[in-house]
Amino acid sequence: MKVVNLAQKLSLFDTHWDPKVVASYNGNDIMVVKFQGEFPFHDHPDTDDFFLVIEGEVILDVEGQSHRLGPGELFVVPKGVRHRPRAEREAKVLLIEPAGTPNTGDAATAARKDRI
Amino acid sequence: MKVVNLAQKLSLFDTHWDPKVVASYNGNDIMVVKFQGEFPFHDHPDTDDFFLVIEGEVILDVEGQSHRLGPGELFVVPKGVRHRPRAEREAKVLLIEPAGTPNTGDAATAARKDRI
Repeated sequence: MKVVNLAQKLSLFDTHWDPKVVASYNGNDIMVVKFQGEFPFHDHPDTDDFFLVIEGEVILDVEGQSHRLGPGELFVVPKGVRHRPRAEREAKVLLIEPAGTPNTGDAATAARKDRI
Repeated sequence: MKVVNLAQKLSLFDTHWDPKVVASYNGNDIMVVKFQGEFPFHDHPDTDDFFLVIEGEVILDVEGQSHRLGPGELFVVPKGVRHRPRAEREAKVLLIEPAGTPNTGDAATAARKDRI
């Protein structure tokens, strides 16, 4: 049990599309991640996907619509819905997914999600 | 599916200790709430309790320790652990709890948690 400072955690790594676990909530990973460029389209058949922008701007392409999120804006992609996050410049994001969820929707291509 | 702007949602009400649901994630309520003064000590026997400070300063009294959280800082109180949130001045917070969780730990005294 301790206070987690998101900016401090985000200062510990420079990689993109590489979520780091900073806390756990009821079996969910609370993660910080840096987005830059385009991630592949994917879906999570078993879980919703929670995004909260901390810094920068994120575009979520979902079902033919492009949703722009700035700091203090969140979006929940329902389970099974195909989506693609992207960011023209580096953006910092809080992500929540059940522990073990592959970020690409596919365990074979997923990032490791180390705890920091 | 839409972008949720936390500041806009927080502008819709003035009450304290009165969480408002702004989104859902896998059966959890994503809520915004304004803290001012002291909430009663309580626990949630069945769930962790997620706090992320958006604006202001929150003190979480947990097991004899007082944790100070500023903007961009989060804390997860594990299930069953007694805690008391308080704020000397108004603070704005993102809360996550399973839908139906009484904010006081007791359905008889809990806030309604309307969706806004």
